Amino acid sequence: MELERFYNAPERVVDDILHVAAATADLRIAEPESGLRILVRGDWDRQREGSRQVAVLSGGGAGHEPAHAGFIGDGMLTGVISGSLFASPSVEPILAAIREVCGDAGCLLVVKNYTGDRLNFGLAAERARGEGLDVEMVIVADDVAIAEAPQPRGIAGTLLVHKLAGYLASQGASLAEIQQHTRALCERMGSLGMALKPAAQPGQPASTRSPELGLGIHNEPGTRAVDPQSADDAMRWVLEPLLQAVAPVAAPGSSSGTAWVAMLNNLGSCSSQEMGVLAECLLRQLGEERVSHLIGPAPLMTSLDMHGFSVTLVASEPELIEALTAPTTAPAWPGIQAVRNVVTFKPDTAQGNAALLEDAPQDAESTAVLWRVIETLRESREELDALDAKSGDGDAGASMQSGADSIAKALDAQRLDTSSLSPLFTGIGQLLARDMGGSSGVLLSILFTAAGGALERGDNPGEALAAGVRKMQEYGGARPGDRTMLDALMPAIESLQHGNTLAEAAQAARTGAQATASLTTAKAGRSAYVPESALEGIVDPGAEAVARVFEALARP
Amino acid sequence: MELERFYNAPERVVDDILHVAAATADLRIAEPESGLRILVRGDWDRQREGSRQVAVLSGGGAGHEPAHAGFIGDGMLTGVISGSLFASPSVEPILAAIREVCGDAGCLLVVKNYTGDRLNFGLAAERARGEGLDVEMVIVADDVAIAEAPQPRGIAGTLLVHKLAGYLASQGASLAEIQQHTRALCERMGSLGMALKPAAQPGQPASTRSPELGLGIHNEPGTRAVDPQSADDAMRWVLEPLLQAVAPVAAPGSSSGTAWVAMLNNLGSCSSQEMGVLAECLLRQLGEERVSHLIGPAPLMTSLDMHGFSVTLVASEPELIEALTAPTTAPAWPGIQAVRNVVTFKPDTAQGNAALLEDAPQDAESTAVLWRVIETLRESREELDALDAKSGDGDAGASMQSGADSIAKALDAQRLDTSSLSPLFTGIGQLLARDMGGSSGVLLSILFTAAGGALERGDNPGEALAAGVRKMQEYGGARPGDRTMLDALMPAIESLQHGNTLAEAAQAARTGAQATASLTTAKAGRSAYVPESALEGIVDPGAEAVARVFEALARP
Repeated sequence: MELERFYNAPERVVDDILHVAAATADLRIAEPESGLRILVRGDWDRQREGSRQVAVLSGGGAGHEPAHAGFIGDGMLTGVISGSLFASPSVEPILAAIREVCGDAGCLLVVKNYTGDRLNFGLAAERARGEGLDVEMVIVADDVAIAEAPQPRGIAGTLLVHKLAGYLASQGASLAEIQQHTRALCERMGSLGMALKPAAQPGQPASTRSPELGLGIHNEPGTRAVDPQSADDAMRWVLEPLLQAVAPVAAPGSSSGTAWVAMLNNLGSCSSQEMGVLAECLLRQLGEERVSHLIGPAPLMTSLDMHGFSVTLVASEPELIEALTAPTTAPAWPGIQAVRNVVTFKPDTAQGNAALLEDAPQDAESTAVLWRVIETLRESREELDALDAKSGDGDAGASMQSGADSIAKALDAQRLDTSSLSPLFTGIGQLLARDMGGSSGVLLSILFTAAGGALERGDNPGEALAAGVRKMQEYGGARPGDRTMLDALMPAIESLQHGNTLAEAAQAARTGAQATASLTTAKAGRSAYVPESALEGIVDPGAEAVARVFEALARP
Repeated sequence: MELERFYNAPERVVDDILHVAAATADLRIAEPESGLRILVRGDWDRQREGSRQVAVLSGGGAGHEPAHAGFIGDGMLTGVISGSLFASPSVEPILAAIREVCGDAGCLLVVKNYTGDRLNFGLAAERARGEGLDVEMVIVADDVAIAEAPQPRGIAGTLLVHKLAGYLASQGASLAEIQQHTRALCERMGSLGMALKPAAQPGQPASTRSPELGLGIHNEPGTRAVDPQSADDAMRWVLEPLLQAVAPVAAPGSSSGTAWVAMLNNLGSCSSQEMGVLAECLLRQLGEERVSHLIGPAPLMTSLDMHGFSVTLVASEPELIEALTAPTTAPAWPGIQAVRNVVTFKPDTAQGNAALLEDAPQDAESTAVLWRVIETLRESREELDALDAKSGDGDAGASMQSGADSIAKALDAQRLDTSSLSPLFTGIGQLLARDMGGSSGVLLSILFTAAGGALERGDNPGEALAAGVRKMQEYGGARPGDRTMLDALMPAIESLQHGNTLAEAAQAARTGAQATASLTTAKAGRSAYVPESALEGIVDPGAEAVARVFEALARP
């Protein structure tokens, strides 16, 4: 059967992930033989740090990665206790974790409001107290999915409690103070989730449930089925009840009502691009001026591979912002971004056609030669297209003609300096970049632009064109023999460099172009995708065009 | 039709996401009227910073979020130019971006090896040089999917080049030095991707292609179809060719061969849990002692919602580690973690049964009362199970009996101190937590543990039990009238607190238990999920058990 998700044996998932956490951060993990899943800060000693700082423990069932282990670090959690997938840890590991980290400053347990978690953390707290340890608990119940629910669930808002508690602890706040502030935060914040598809446990087939609003993080059904037609729709479904449920507070010094801290949580398998789209919906629907800070989008409190997101809102207050902004070494904390007015700049495109002048100086002979090339290319369009149809997508002639037309228009308007090769090449380079399009337009523009620059620096025309061809190779990646226009261009330019006449150069170009008919493995350009046999005997249209241009240049 | 992914109009995706980036970081964005998609550091002035530090620009097609805008920041990119989905930006915005950031120190363009990107960035570089700006380019071609490919693609390894270039620039290195070091990195590193499902463009249906190895980031087919049966299989498919392709270098001072820096990139829609599993496979298969550092797992260079991952490997060298470890303000850089030997600790579970002694003091009368309660519960098992079958899952009697059996065993072994209420309650609390199981076991353990602690602190038995009941409510969340054992327990304990006899307390418990038969809306415990009509006339089994226990206690 085809693998649907990246798993090994389902029963190994939790321990494997905790192992990675322990191998890539300064953590200590309960020895595997104990059967207990506990991770604590490697630099934490309950005698030393624990006498000065409150220890902050959290945890719960697994399946919410990067929660909870990813949030251990200075300024956030002191340690976590993990259960198995979606199941609370039992009393024993919680009690052992408390004993491991709790010093004289005491220990706060941050617990999501699920019966199993409350009971197991609660009993562990009672037993720890019985041993003389100073332990308190804060229960997070931020889910607003069910209005008037007697026991709202604890979901992503838990992260904010971790951060606030960890910050206060790092500042030396007392256990009572931290308990008071985190409980106040729990009262003020709210979260709501929505998913297009629910999660599937490792080893189980994907569920077929339809989009739902008000999901928890354990794959329990949402409070209602919804049918959003867009990301905007989905965000509206989430924000409307959330705004009704969360206590607004006028921001100090603001006359425009509450400014929000918003957290956007990827519930599992949304792509980064979808999360970016949802972030834009969130800012636009709330009003950017009403969102003071954004946390995420990021996977923070996930539900396996649930294809959904949750939003957490809390009124912005300076003390909270200070706590959320403070640095932490917790690897999964995504930081918090102040939402600001977008600052724009006017991109400098004015110099774009600096070499295309008004009333440009004209040299009659050069201008006449240019017109000869233009006419040649216009007349060659159908033949070049036909050649290209056998090896590519059949527009080589049209593309060359569009380049020729662009130069013709500039000549008519007297905007191309034909009195000297350097500005002429630079000007042609700019015209082709602007008007010709396609890879060949850019490549020819590179040729003329680089050659114009080389002439400016004192190269002779042969050297300058050779420098341009080198740039074509560098940027385009093709080499001689790859069945491209280079196969005519390079011999012609070499001939010029040897001091030969234009007629001799044209002959070299023609020989080079003819030789492409026997090159049946194209390594660059569009013929690279054509079977070898189809190329047999067909001259490359780019090389043919180059040969015709040199022949036109050489004509007396 | 049901929404499959969180999108609004497909043509808005790119600009919406760039807008969020500009609204949540210190950036400047090209004004929307220009039609050019350019983002640059807000704190960068080409006269000031640009005269001292090389500017580093990158970019390319969109669809790779958080690349490229997420990697703008001090110590990483100076700015980015975004094309539309999977399509290179054209010359004009690239040139405008160079003009915006390039000062006397010059500008490095970091370009992924795709023809469109090479040509457009290349021509922009040539034109910028023509304007006198000092511009160089490094082309990233880290994909090892096709051995001997003349033009390997640039994929996730590009991030390492961004970081190295940004670090060197921040240290004041010259353009030539940065070019030299980044080119050397490009020679040394390699990347390979694999996906279970390819990406789907916004607005397009999901593809049905099978798992493939050697995918690029533009949804082009992989180099071969594969059939991995597990995450381990998938990682093996990726690591084998990668290890063959990437140049090993003996780590200085190491006799054990190359130590690797590994980067694990989420290509789109893998869940955090899957990425954790893959990280464990990566470390285990390479050998943890051979991986010096791990970057990610994280979405870094994604391909829309592709369900896949890529690994990038490069031999670990001190200069590179220094660059990758240096701080940056770029919001999407996930940091780099040193891989270390896992440090374990022995969890302290020894105190677990501290109250369960050898040769515990016995009070004959108390012990006899306990046996009476045990017998009562054993005899009640069937009746309690039957009551529970009507309102729950039918195991209330069995659960109570397992608690009774646990206490019986401890009495037989003389491990329970029956000479005094405080150690007795604490010991019962520990026994029930260890042996009884289920929510009711934890709840009763909380009752006895908290009551034992209160007795220890000097409360009288009634007060102590009342304190225990408060803890049951706090952690369990049930209230009187919720159809739980509290409905018998609370009146009995209140009766004791009023100085009444055990017989009177037992009467109160019985009255409370009887009253549960008319409570048809259970708000807590398992009957919360049973229809009201089914509860009519049925006494709650927990309350019934409590009443029987008090009756047993009161029996002379």
